[in-house]
Order: sequence, then structure tokens, then C-alpha cells
Amino acid sequence: MSITRRDLLRSIGIAGGAGVMYSTMGALGLAPAAAQTPPFTPLDSNALRGRGGRSVVVMGGGIAGMTAAYELLKGGYDVTVLEARDRPGGRNWTVRGGDTYTDLDGNRQRAGFSRGEYMNTGPGRIPQMHVTLDYCKELGVAVEVFNNQNADAFLYREGDHGLHGKAIRHRAAKADVYGYTSELLAKAADQGALDSYLTEDDKEALIAFLRRFGDIGDKVDGDPDGSFAYTGTSRRGYTVQPGAGLESGVETDPYALSDVLASGIGQYFAFEFGFDQAMVMLQPVGGMDRIAYAFSDAIGRRRFRYNAEIVRYRNTTGGVEVDYRQGGAVKTVTADFAVNALPPHLAARIPSNLPGEVVNALASVRVTNAGKLGIEYDRRWWEEDYRIYGGISNANTDLANIWHPSYGYHGDKGVMIGYYNTGGSADTYGTLTPDRRLRRTVEQGKKIFGDVYARGITASFSQNWARAPFSEGAWVSWPDQTGPDYARLLEPAGNIHFAGDHLSHAIAWQHGAMVSARATVTRIQDRVAAAG
Amino acid sequence: MSITRRDLLRSIGIAGGAGVMYSTMGALGLAPAAAQTPPFTPLDSNALRGRGGRSVVVMGGGIAGMTAAYELLKGGYDVTVLEARDRPGGRNWTVRGGDTYTDLDGNRQRAGFSRGEYMNTGPGRIPQMHVTLDYCKELGVAVEVFNNQNADAFLYREGDHGLHGKAIRHRAAKADVYGYTSELLAKAADQGALDSYLTEDDKEALIAFLRRFGDIGDKVDGDPDGSFAYTGTSRRGYTVQPGAGLESGVETDPYALSDVLASGIGQYFAFEFGFDQAMVMLQPVGGMDRIAYAFSDAIGRRRFRYNAEIVRYRNTTGGVEVDYRQGGAVKTVTADFAVNALPPHLAARIPSNLPGEVVNALASVRVTNAGKLGIEYDRRWWEEDYRIYGGISNANTDLANIWHPSYGYHGDKGVMIGYYNTGGSADTYGTLTPDRRLRRTVEQGKKIFGDVYARGITASFSQNWARAPFSEGAWVSWPDQTGPDYARLLEPAGNIHFAGDHLSHAIAWQHGAMVSARATVTRIQDRVAAAG
Repeated sequence: MSITRRDLLRSIGIAGGAGVMYSTMGALGLAPAAAQTPPFTPLDSNALRGRGGRSVVVMGGGIAGMTAAYELLKGGYDVTVLEARDRPGGRNWTVRGGDTYTDLDGNRQRAGFSRGEYMNTGPGRIPQMHVTLDYCKELGVAVEVFNNQNADAFLYREGDHGLHGKAIRHRAAKADVYGYTSELLAKAADQGALDSYLTEDDKEALIAFLRRFGDIGDKVDGDPDGSFAYTGTSRRGYTVQPGAGLESGVETDPYALSDVLASGIGQYFAFEFGFDQAMVMLQPVGGMDRIAYAFSDAIGRRRFRYNAEIVRYRNTTGGVEVDYRQGGAVKTVTADFAVNALPPHLAARIPSNLPGEVVNALASVRVTNAGKLGIEYDRRWWEEDYRIYGGISNANTDLANIWHPSYGYHGDKGVMIGYYNTGGSADTYGTLTPDRRLRRTVEQGKKIFGDVYARGITASFSQNWARAPFSEGAWVSWPDQTGPDYARLLEPAGNIHFAGDHLSHAIAWQHGAMVSARATVTRIQDRVAAAG
Repeated sequence: MSITRRDLLRSIGIAGGAGVMYSTMGALGLAPAAAQTPPFTPLDSNALRGRGGRSVVVMGGGIAGMTAAYELLKGGYDVTVLEARDRPGGRNWTVRGGDTYTDLDGNRQRAGFSRGEYMNTGPGRIPQMHVTLDYCKELGVAVEVFNNQNADAFLYREGDHGLHGKAIRHRAAKADVYGYTSELLAKAADQGALDSYLTEDDKEALIAFLRRFGDIGDKVDGDPDGSFAYTGTSRRGYTVQPGAGLESGVETDPYALSDVLASGIGQYFAFEFGFDQAMVMLQPVGGMDRIAYAFSDAIGRRRFRYNAEIVRYRNTTGGVEVDYRQGGAVKTVTADFAVNALPPHLAARIPSNLPGEVVNALASVRVTNAGKLGIEYDRRWWEEDYRIYGGISNANTDLANIWHPSYGYHGDKGVMIGYYNTGGSADTYGTLTPDRRLRRTVEQGKKIFGDVYARGITASFSQNWARAPFSEGAWVSWPDQTGPDYARLLEPAGNIHFAGDHLSHAIAWQHGAMVSARATVTRIQDRVAAAG
């Protein structure tokens, strides 16, 4: 009996679940090169039925912990999730009206957002190829587009150049940068400066490309300096757009070459080319925490212990013990295995009997801060006044990134992300009280958007991840991800296995947490099978 | 009593309606340069109350005709809309399961799309700054993002080059084109070839830009040829994307410079920079015809006469008479004015007493064909196998543009637009029967997407606008839009005024139809006022 490729695919598809069919198809060469999901075969609950040693305590109900719990349940494991907060998701946290929050500095906030409005304080977007979307599909979480790119959003650059303090549309910045660089390269090629790198055919094709790419002028015979001139383009936009009758539109003038270059405004463009930032990006309809709650629903409420702060954990003979504080009492969970999905720098701090080298490895990460502030306005002035429907305005001030909401278009209200910044800028705002963060944001934002930025504010909420209980940071990085500390945590310490985005090459993405959790549950299953 | 700017804005806002507040704010200089909507003051129903001469027959219930009717109603006019089809919208036509259609060649189709699936046979996207969105807001039509750009969609170029017959991700094409052009320009600048155009500061800033824009290598001292080398980048994508543990991702190799240039693959990029094509683009939730039906609902069913084909129209002493055939009988509508919102080449053909120069002007347009074919599949293989969530794949075959649907993500089924082409390619498919169009589309599509393109097809529908009753074309262009024919139609012919996207500088866009209609109703109101 011969097995056809289709039979094989069908059998894998049935057994596999999210992502498996896809990655296998790629491996068999049936599809053009695609960014495959790293292979994963979900656990089969029949494979080890009746086998002992199949209880797991999951330390931390963030995305890594819940992915591990969810996949372990598929394999027939008995799972308990300990979560210090009163909700699932960890850094995947969506704030809505009525939510309250107190950070480690004692800043207490109550979000006053209107019904239907929200802000994602943690992850806010999902690239098309991330496993995150497979889980959205599998768990029934509806998705919609997150605008990571908007030609009409603003770029704002302060500095010693002619564009200082100007709010410039992305489209205008791009048109000028592409126009001038096309002019320069066409001139260089035409004047023979690149003849050692280009054939005549190459040169002709290059200039044809640049003509269209930069919307530049013709070659002017006998006038190399005047050839291929960039003198502006409708791509920049208009002061009055094309309309009826004789209104053909009033175009805008380009900025000067030296100002465009000196401003560094073109440095932003590469963001949109990034493997994990290029459009199309997506978000769950209704808030990123739809993913967190979909996981917790699928796992089952009874398997969670909330408000359960882990205070000690240890390997025992043949298992693990985890102590947690809940409602003033310290309780203990025992299990055959633990999945330690806590932030590594916090896991290192909690008393345990882990070997010193493991604790040191956990503590060796570098912690990055990030901050986000949401402002609800009583009207969507970015749409109404500026015709910006979602997307990111970017500044070289400490605001860094300003998100125009990708939901609720044309609604009565809307929540802008006033800043999404990292590192020093996040610390700058983080050390302020929430009121002062808002005040500073408004002052900085007015420089870009004008007085409208200060008017009609109906609510605000801000998050400083460095001082968020049970996170104390936005994400971590490794001094050396090829070094022994990282490698050590890929191995279990006794019966304690580790998981989290920090143990992946997609740090700060839910995808990283998920693929790490998948690797970890596979490892546990292999152990159980081998012990059989 | 002094009037503040705010008072002025408020008064205009209240009287104005869609778009007015915005355009006025720009005119007063309160906002950074924006692409303003051409100014329009909606008619005031109190202004000419009780004045005679206020009945209008609207010839054609497309977007121009309905915008005119809607705005005239605001002004207190008595309006009748004659529409030859059995539905409003004209070329704004969304096809759903059960819809039937017979074209002028006798091709009869019944769309078999599943519930919730649809295809927009005409307009399919809306730029952020178009008046179309103002009407969506005013009429309560919900909008969502239309993905006009997707880094993971394919580019496909046949020709005498090394990329012939390869399906290439947009992201890979962009990375290679930007990488190689950055390398070349950095080399030219560094080697002094552009010193007559660049200061030292310019040069330094340019190279810093190119380093990041192209993701190219360092300068290598003493090795100008080896400096700034482009050797690939993660922006191209991976064969296996970054995952857990030690899986840092397997990057892909760039194509050769000569192949990249010879293929002309970079020629597509400028599409995404266009004033009216750059993201963010939008679409009504549920189909473009939501706009058409929102207009017809707002105007009121009783003011429409459907299945009313105009067979003669004429100026009379002090008014107009329009004859139409409905259910075998010829009937007549009389009014003070007509708004002729028919396609100009069809309006020219219908018997009238228009002056010869006006008929000639109507007939002088060049008609463009466009075709679209929708294919419903029993699974969303573009998402599942290729991780493409909406967006456009583009080929230099006669398919031209292939749209991945921007709605229904993760659903069980989906409708791809197998081709959206114009001119000769549209004619090539248009002359085939619908079955043969599908067969050809599948053969061409398989070259890009593989055998999956032929499998699981559950329904199909195609439109050849050249042979669509009451349209006979997709849109028109003017031999000379600054010439006398165009100018003639901006003026009324007696009591007959003209409107349509063809009388705008946004031809083939609903925006063009709307701004033209606005200009026309303003003109009528001015006449009535002057006659007072």
C-alpha cells in the first residue's frame, strides 16, 4: 500500500492542529518559500494514556504558561496554573473603563475609558506569520487589521536642520527621500560612476526603476546636472486634493535635499520593512486580552489559582513543590513537573533549590522598560481633522511612537496611545505620577498635532512596565544568546522546565512565548515517554 | 460683538455637515498641511423656502446621481431618481450568493457564493482622505481596513531573466531592490561621484540613511568594491522563522542584482506610494454597496423609479422632460432641472434635444474596460498555507492584480479576486464565457500559487464592464481634460446639469462622483437663488 503525499498531509493535518499542516507542506516543497512556523506536533492524549508522572504545575498564567497548560491538556496531563494576578495574560493586558491598578511605586489609577474603548498596555499587534494567529483561529478569537503603517500619519524630528519642529506626513517624507535618492543614483549611473558594477542592461533597467520609484524627471541631453531632477510629486499629498470640475488639486513643494538628509527622517522607513513589522499586521477584535481569556476559557477556570503569588519552589524526589501565598495563607502544590513561565529575573529572586548556575542564568538577563499611555478624546480629531485612520506617528522626542487607534473608526470617541516608548524615555515618564505623565505627553503631543491634542480629553491611563507588579520590566534581552546561560535554561533543572518569550528568538512577541511553551511541553512528553 | 474662530467653526460645523469643518479648519491655518476636501457648503433648506423651480429629476442612480439627490433633498428640493437597474449604485455593485446577471453578450450568471461571502465588482477601496468616508460616517456605514499592501503577497514576473516564473514575496523583492540600490548609491557617494551635488554633511547623512534603508554592510577601508555590500537581510523572510530555543531562523538568499533589475520587479512599488493608493485604505464592512444602499435609504424608496431606462430627454421652456421605459410602457417625468448622471458615452447616445456640441462633448470620452473575477474556495489557503491576510499579489500576466480578501479572516471560506485587470487584459477575459474566464484564471493562477489554486473552488462570478448593461465600460478618460469638451459639460445645457466622476479629477473613484455631484447641486442652488 502506497501512501500519497495527500494522504500523508491529511493524516498530519488531522493529528496536528494549528500550524502543522502548513509547516509540513513547506517542508515537502509543495509551496513557494514561506516563513514556516517552527514544526510542532501537538501532544496526543492517547499516546501515554494511563502512564503515571503526568501532573504539571504551571508557574505563571501569562501567554507562555497558558500555552503550555493548553497543550499539556491536549496530551492528557493534569495541570494547575498559579497566577499572581487576578486575571490571565501577564503582560498581555487590556485596560478598559473601571479597571484599577496600583504599581510598585504606589501610583493608583482607575481607568475612566468609555464603554467599548480600551488600550492594550502590553502587546498590541500580531505579524501574519506568527503562531499567535494560529491560536486565534483555533480558539475562535476574531482578528482585524492593526495599522502599523499610515502614509498620512506624521513624522516629527527636532534638531539642527530645516525640518525642526515640523509635523511631516509619512507620505511627504517618503516622496522626498525616494525622489532625491533616485535622482542621485540615476545621475551617478548615467554619468558612468557605477560602470564597474553595472552592465549597460543593468544601468538601463536601474534608471527605468528609479524614474518610477522616485517620480523623477527625464534625462536632459547635454545637462547631466539637470537630468533626472526630483521636483516634487503628487505622492506628497495636496493642500487641496483633486476635486470636481477644474480643481485638479494643489500640490505641495518638496523640502530641500540637505534638510531631508540632515533631519534623518528617512531612518524611520526601515521599521516598516522589518520581518515582524511589515504590513499586514493584526489584532484581536475588542482587545489583545481576548487571546488571554480564550486560553483561560479553554484551559478551564478550575485549573487556575489566581492571586497566587509564588513564594518558594523546589525539586523533590520525583517531583516538584511550589508554595504560593493566596489570601494571606501559604499553600503548596505538588506535581510531577513544573513549567516555570515567570519572568526570569523574578524567578531568580524567589527562594528555590535550583542549582546556583541556574539561578545565575535566570538573573543574567537584561531587563528593558517600556511605557504606554492611553488618552481618550471626546472626538476622533485625528480622523476628522487630519484624515488619519490608525497607524503610527513617530517623533524623535521622548514620546517616540504615537498610535492612532485601529478600531472604532468614525466613532464618537477614541483612545490614542500618546506614547509607546522604551528604555530611557519610558523611565522618564515612568518616574512621574500618572497625572504628570499625561501633562507631559500633552505638551509634547501639541508640538506635533497642535492645540487639538490638549482638548476634549475624557480619560487617561498609563503603564510603566518597570514598576509593574509581577513583571518589573517589559521584556528582557540576553548579553549573549549563544552563551551558556541561555543554553542552561533550555534544559530542565530537575523536574522544573522553563518557558517564556525570553527562551526564544522572538523576544517581546507572544509568538516567542508560544513556541517556547510548545518546545517545553514536547520536552516533558519525551521525558514521560522515555520513563515509560 | 466679536466672532471668535471657535464660534465661526462651530457655526460652520452645525450648518455644514460632512467635510466642511475639516476643510475650513485647514483654510484657517489651524492644522498642519493636510489634503483638504474641496470646500462644499451643503444646501440650506431654509434659504430658498417657498421658492418655485425646485424640482429635479436625477438621471441615473449611481453614486453621482444619489449624492446629488441626497444633497438636493437637504436643500428642500423635490427629487426623482430614474435608475435603469433594479438596484441603486451603478458601478458600485457587490455580488452575493443568489444574484443573477446577464451581460450584453448574453452571458448569464448566477452567483453561488456562500452566505457572508461577496465580491465588489466595481470600486473596492477608499483612500483615507476621500469624501466617500465622510458620507460613510454621515450615513452610518461602518468601515474596516482594505489591505492594499501586503509584504507577504506575491509578485510574479515572466520574462527573459532569472526571476522568470518565480512567485516572489513583496518583502523579498523590496529587500533586494532596496539593498542593491542602497549599495550602489552608497558606493557612488563614498567614491566621490556625487560631490558636485552633495556637501560632506549631506554625504554622511545619505550613507547613514542607506545603511539602514538597504540593510547593507559597512564601509571596508581600502576596499571600495567590497564596501556597503548587500548580502541579504532578514527582511526578505525566512524558510523557517525564528522560534524557540536555538532556532534563530533560517534566512533566505537574495536574488542576483542583474535578475532583480531585469525583472522589473521594483516597478510595482510605486503603486503603494500613490496619493490615492497608499495605506491606510478602507472598505465598508459587508460590501461596497452598503454605501449605495445607505444613500438610497436616506433618499427614500418612494423617490426612486427602478427598471426605468431613459429613452429620451429634453429641455423644455422652463424645465426638462425625461421619458423612460418601465415594464413595457414609456412614461415621462417633468421637472425644473435634470441632473444627468449617466455615463457620458451612453448619455450621448440617448435621443435628446441637447445642442450638438454637448452631445459631441459627451461622446468624446475614451472608455476604459476593467474586469474582475471572484473565486470562492472551500478554505482560505492563502492564509493557511501562505500566511497572506488580504492584500494584492501582482503579475505581469493578463491576471494583473489578484486580491486576497480583506474580510472574513480565519473563516471557513473566502472569495479571492482572481483578476482585476484593465484594457486589453480585461478584454481578453471579457470575450470569454464566464466558465472559460474561470478556467483561464485558474491556469494562470496556478503558475503563481501552485495546484492549490485549482482545488476546492465552490463558486465563481466575473464581470466584464465593457459589456455591462447601462455602463458599457469601467470608467472614461478625456483626450484633454483642459479642453473645451470637458469644460462644456461643467456648464449646464439649458436646464440639464451634468455630474459624474468623469467631471472630476478623481475619475474612477466614488470621491470623484461625489464632489462632482456637490458642485452640480451648488450650481443649481445658485441658479434658483439668482432667479429669485
